[in-house]
Amino acid sequence: MSPIAPPLARRLEGLQSSAIRDLLKLTARADIISLAGGLPDAELMPRDRIARAAAAALEGRSRLQYTESPGWGPLREVLAAREAQRLGREVPIDEVFVTHGSQQALSLLSEVLLDPGSLVVVEDPAYVGALQVFRAAGARIEAIPLDAEGMRLDALRDLLARGERPAVVHTVSNFHNPGGVTLSAARRRELAELAGTYGFWVIEDDPYGELWFDRPAPDPVATYSPNVIRLSSVSKILAPALRVGWMVAPPRVCRAVELLKQGADLCGSALTQQIAADLLTDTEWLTGHIDAVRTAYGTRAKALVAAVRDRFGERVRTSDAAGGMFVWVDFTDGTDTNALLPTALDAGVAYVPGSAFAVATDYSHSARLCFTTSDTAVLEQAVDRLARAHTLG
Amino acid sequence: MSPIAPPLARRLEGLQSSAIRDLLKLTARADIISLAGGLPDAELMPRDRIARAAAAALEGRSRLQYTESPGWGPLREVLAAREAQRLGREVPIDEVFVTHGSQQALSLLSEVLLDPGSLVVVEDPAYVGALQVFRAAGARIEAIPLDAEGMRLDALRDLLARGERPAVVHTVSNFHNPGGVTLSAARRRELAELAGTYGFWVIEDDPYGELWFDRPAPDPVATYSPNVIRLSSVSKILAPALRVGWMVAPPRVCRAVELLKQGADLCGSALTQQIAADLLTDTEWLTGHIDAVRTAYGTRAKALVAAVRDRFGERVRTSDAAGGMFVWVDFTDGTDTNALLPTALDAGVAYVPGSAFAVATDYSHSARLCFTTSDTAVLEQAVDRLARAHTLG
Repeated sequence: MSPIAPPLARRLEGLQSSAIRDLLKLTARADIISLAGGLPDAELMPRDRIARAAAAALEGRSRLQYTESPGWGPLREVLAAREAQRLGREVPIDEVFVTHGSQQALSLLSEVLLDPGSLVVVEDPAYVGALQVFRAAGARIEAIPLDAEGMRLDALRDLLARGERPAVVHTVSNFHNPGGVTLSAARRRELAELAGTYGFWVIEDDPYGELWFDRPAPDPVATYSPNVIRLSSVSKILAPALRVGWMVAPPRVCRAVELLKQGADLCGSALTQQIAADLLTDTEWLTGHIDAVRTAYGTRAKALVAAVRDRFGERVRTSDAAGGMFVWVDFTDGTDTNALLPTALDAGVAYVPGSAFAVATDYSHSARLCFTTSDTAVLEQAVDRLARAHTLG
Repeated sequence: MSPIAPPLARRLEGLQSSAIRDLLKLTARADIISLAGGLPDAELMPRDRIARAAAAALEGRSRLQYTESPGWGPLREVLAAREAQRLGREVPIDEVFVTHGSQQALSLLSEVLLDPGSLVVVEDPAYVGALQVFRAAGARIEAIPLDAEGMRLDALRDLLARGERPAVVHTVSNFHNPGGVTLSAARRRELAELAGTYGFWVIEDDPYGELWFDRPAPDPVATYSPNVIRLSSVSKILAPALRVGWMVAPPRVCRAVELLKQGADLCGSALTQQIAADLLTDTEWLTGHIDAVRTAYGTRAKALVAAVRDRFGERVRTSDAAGGMFVWVDFTDGTDTNALLPTALDAGVAYVPGSAFAVATDYSHSARLCFTTSDTAVLEQAVDRLARAHTLG
């Protein structure tokens, strides 16, 4: 007899794998140009500089040991200094907590801030990694649509006016995944004000903020309110394998997260944390490196958007190629992007249908395109293939 | 107004920091010899070999990217091969899941296998990292005392006879932390049998199994039953900073854990996972390295136990110095180890009182001594100081 405890059976039924991860497995075929990915370009990751930092970190043995649960001190210090610059205020080190990528911050925060049944407001289309965590915490989800200026605060105000009282409002404020849009400065101020008035936490999830193409993103929402917990990560600017994310949050939140982190995995890697600290401290090098990533992604993004507009004209609306890693496309001619996908794969191009990110809004005429890992010629070829599939489909 | 969501306030009240971590902060004074730690010796960690592996891993860029949630394929393969050798059967790769240290395996498994109110059986004294996780999951805890042969299965049988039906029985089968003892071969077979009969999972938590001093530990409990989930880690044999632990579990358990891992932190570090795989594959070097760690720890453990027996005679009973990182001491003369601690700190020696690990048994006359980070002369001096404190106290 091989028993299986009832919770396991339920968990297996209840949990859904990320639809995007499953799709990615299908689109790894060499003849397919994938715009379906969500990965930064490994070719732009600073391999030599990381190798140098790893060698330096391994000159002694102290970085091989366990480290503090909130993160290695010198890393927290450099993060505090960088965040102080972003936020225009002093950031004490006890407001900085290092996590295993920002996904872990989302996961630990959901344990700290939510009870089953707590209301969480997310954006629609949503970052699915956040949605998955909030759902697993048993939260009730309300979704607020995006427009060109980010989360529609008129819809959030309507929800509050109906008497709804969210515990948390989650926003990807800069260069949204998947929506491509950025929350406007005016809305940032207003969102911060609403958080103070109605007593909710804003989780400002910002992995893409430094990847702006023409001009920097507006000041963070966290600039305007102590009710905002800011998340970011080195995954998109340095390398995901460092597994270094962080949150900036009031000390009492960091303290609660620390106790949970001890149970979750004790601590992060002192080795990769020293590597991250080394690179983030080398400001002259870092500025040049991020500029190079920005330039490469900006060129690709603009080529992709130009090709889409050229080949599809009035039949699509796209987000601007302003930053980040994604372009969002709405078909205005009734094209169903789920139905189109098999034809597109036959034509040799993959994307993620909008419905994979939809919470309450119908995004069956939309798609997310990722431009990070292909050069401009390949991106143009991908759009040609998509146009051919669209003609056939 | 700076609101605080009610769940956060409750979490801060409800969660307790690890008593041992807090104590460690007090015992970092340079004039104190600490037997209170729980860390492997950084001086024995293979810095040069890790540096070589890091350089090799960074010759390309592929290890800088995100990796698969269950772990980097080649690492899972070498772990499967090693575990096959331990278990005496083939171990398919889909039964191996890499975690961020074994602590993460405990945390994810508690989500997969437990509901609030589920019964979890732990050992008494307990590994507090496991206890913390099971309590956070809302489990009901029953504790089974240890004796010289490990978990007292007569007490477990009594509990089952009373009609109790555990979902999980957790055991540190080899060189127990904190108890120092090893589950006997006969009890392993019996525990596996009970798991089959009563339909519970055994979590066999085995970070210390390779650190035997005179003879290898008996075959794993997992040898005898498919109801056993085996956990281990490279933290104690290579370096904690790699943050590489793993579980061997039926594929359906691994699949459920994978879905949770995606939400918890997406994936581990491909960089540190390649380093671990490199070292574990280099079997000739690895054998020599683990032998050297074993020899160093064995020498220290035996010196510590000899000194304790010499200075305290009949007034203490200690566990054998058979492996692992800890010796457990029971004072037979009524000494209260909590009351003795301040005097011991004044005399320049620190230990962890037994009550820090007690679940339902009175361990106020016991203490855990860690021998990993001091040489034999220092350990003897520590015991002299402890004897002086004991005379005064």
